[in-house]
Amino acid sequence: MKDMGCPGFRFAGIAAGIKKTGKEDLGLIVSETPASVAAVFTRNRVKAAPVLLDQTRVRAGLCRAVIANSGNANCCTGTQGMADAESMARQAADALSVPEAMTLVASTGVIGEPMPMETITSAIPGLVEALDPAHAEAFAQAIMTTDTIPKAMSREVVIGGRPVHLIGIVKGAGMIRPDMATMLCFICSDIQASASQLQEMLSSATEQSFNRVTIDGDTSTNDTMLLMANGFSGVSVDSDGHAEQFQQVLTEMMIELAREVVKDGEGVTKVVEVVVEGAGSTAAARAVADTVAHSSLVKTAFFGEDANWGRILGAVGRAGVPVDPDRLNVYFDDVQMVKDGVGCGKDVEKAATEVLRQSEFKVTINLNQGGATASVITSDLSVEYVKINADYRT
Amino acid sequence: MKDMGCPGFRFAGIAAGIKKTGKEDLGLIVSETPASVAAVFTRNRVKAAPVLLDQTRVRAGLCRAVIANSGNANCCTGTQGMADAESMARQAADALSVPEAMTLVASTGVIGEPMPMETITSAIPGLVEALDPAHAEAFAQAIMTTDTIPKAMSREVVIGGRPVHLIGIVKGAGMIRPDMATMLCFICSDIQASASQLQEMLSSATEQSFNRVTIDGDTSTNDTMLLMANGFSGVSVDSDGHAEQFQQVLTEMMIELAREVVKDGEGVTKVVEVVVEGAGSTAAARAVADTVAHSSLVKTAFFGEDANWGRILGAVGRAGVPVDPDRLNVYFDDVQMVKDGVGCGKDVEKAATEVLRQSEFKVTINLNQGGATASVITSDLSVEYVKINADYRT
Repeated sequence: MKDMGCPGFRFAGIAAGIKKTGKEDLGLIVSETPASVAAVFTRNRVKAAPVLLDQTRVRAGLCRAVIANSGNANCCTGTQGMADAESMARQAADALSVPEAMTLVASTGVIGEPMPMETITSAIPGLVEALDPAHAEAFAQAIMTTDTIPKAMSREVVIGGRPVHLIGIVKGAGMIRPDMATMLCFICSDIQASASQLQEMLSSATEQSFNRVTIDGDTSTNDTMLLMANGFSGVSVDSDGHAEQFQQVLTEMMIELAREVVKDGEGVTKVVEVVVEGAGSTAAARAVADTVAHSSLVKTAFFGEDANWGRILGAVGRAGVPVDPDRLNVYFDDVQMVKDGVGCGKDVEKAATEVLRQSEFKVTINLNQGGATASVITSDLSVEYVKINADYRT
Repeated sequence: MKDMGCPGFRFAGIAAGIKKTGKEDLGLIVSETPASVAAVFTRNRVKAAPVLLDQTRVRAGLCRAVIANSGNANCCTGTQGMADAESMARQAADALSVPEAMTLVASTGVIGEPMPMETITSAIPGLVEALDPAHAEAFAQAIMTTDTIPKAMSREVVIGGRPVHLIGIVKGAGMIRPDMATMLCFICSDIQASASQLQEMLSSATEQSFNRVTIDGDTSTNDTMLLMANGFSGVSVDSDGHAEQFQQVLTEMMIELAREVVKDGEGVTKVVEVVVEGAGSTAAARAVADTVAHSSLVKTAFFGEDANWGRILGAVGRAGVPVDPDRLNVYFDDVQMVKDGVGCGKDVEKAATEVLRQSEFKVTINLNQGGATASVITSDLSVEYVKINADYRT
């Protein structure tokens, strides 16, 4: 993570006292000039105040700063919650001397508790003081909830003969499912692009990354993904082929960020890619992949390193897709477990158990009905997941 | 459970050696005369061999015997599996001297392993020997998998001046979700009714009982529910009001059986009724109730006795129904937790935690949009659930 930086951006992360643990809980990202901004938000009908605020502000397409906190989601907090989100933005904007309308807010943590605004107000001077081009990881720490490691990564790619930089920071841990951005994700780049160009690239990359991971099938009220670009590289996506090059590195980084989120999911001990092949349509392939990836029985079997392919077939059968049970093939990595709907016997099960002992592996389901495929990255369901979520607020 | 009996039916349950544990694993129900029969089967596209066999045989509407086993689901076992199911029926029919076509089969247990037919064949004489009108509970024991208690109950109701009897036997434990029968359920009555009359009553009662419970959202490949009626009471449903009276006692018993299934669900420590009120339509009410009832985050909070209503609102918001977050009210039993989308504060949380300390309670969600309601009975998600399902086959 050394030397992680993106020209024209500074970061900060400090312990403000929102979390009872005394850990980092307040972060700030600042662009030296107005950056173009694009966003993807939760599709949950219950949206936290910062999401509602950001949704209106990103429409103008410009962003100077993002203030983010963990420890409190500022959700289901009524009119006071919205006033608090606005106040957080205003105080950060004032301290930075940037326009309030170009300041965004993101919160994550417990739902339904009032924001500790005095704590935040008194921490803002120190937060601004801590800003530094090299502090992306501190920001990553400040947005962690049940994450066990801060998740930040950087890329440098030469486009049109000049270096272009990206930094991606994400927090996940639980409440992750497809058709969603993850909980909080911030991507900063020095590429030059309009807000609408960024939006197109962000939506495309999201579809291939965060919308293809699941931990527990729950969907957060606070999910926010922001892509900011300030143009400091002098490289514009308008030139021939530049957009494609940038899209590629953006998508690759977001796939890796999404994978990191699953890997660090609550209680996760296994990261499993579920691949469905031979489906009649992409929608059918996705329905099967998602049903298998969400099945508690499949996920507990992964946790138990039990090559219980019967549970996989059980999930395939209830996906709402007309599958032919007698044509199903199932593989754990390269080990074929099921051929034409029937198990391949005890011998291959031993080889399959070896596959399941790994921390990452692939399950391939071939429906033998057509040419469509889909994949989703999931995790196991562990004893630790239950413990974490039973005790989350205590 | 004493004196549980239903005229004209005999039951048996023995330890045949299918289960490695040596516990009861083979059961038999016999009607002295051909009984009318109705059935509800799994909607899973992957169906076990006994389900496929029974589906064809119940069409004739008559049943003399049911042979059932635990320890092996006879699913994903190909043509051999179907031959084995047919063989089980034939051997039971021969030993009882009843028509093979009137003999049904039900299996539950591990998927994908061949049936131990020699074990079953050698156990059938002893199984027939064990038949007794008072052995319903032994049969209940023989169909248990991860159930911790046998689930059998009886009813006696006076219809048209004469006593009518019902016995209900069920096994559940996991792989339970709405829109399904449970795994295995057998109901015997001495009422007189045609197969089509029974089918209508069974379908109606299922809708109000087993289709309204959930444990882990998974759906079995083997779910089978049979209702048999042999007419021994001399009371026919054709007489005025008799069908309604029988329907009522049948539905009530099935609701209680379904509740017993949740109560004895894998690792269950809490039985929770999720009630949605004030919805714009019954479909909307059901969608919200089901999403809340299936949410891993809600269920782990129940396990942790944590009055984390934010997770309930999070689940409501992702149910795919146009809810207005600012109109949501949430109650734990009589304790109002959320009013107009905002939490009612720390004081009520203490009262709510008292509610959650009970083994059974109710969560009511009022959407304040209309007059439709729905309810579903769910459980918590415990550490024990994960342990049971991680180690199921070992």
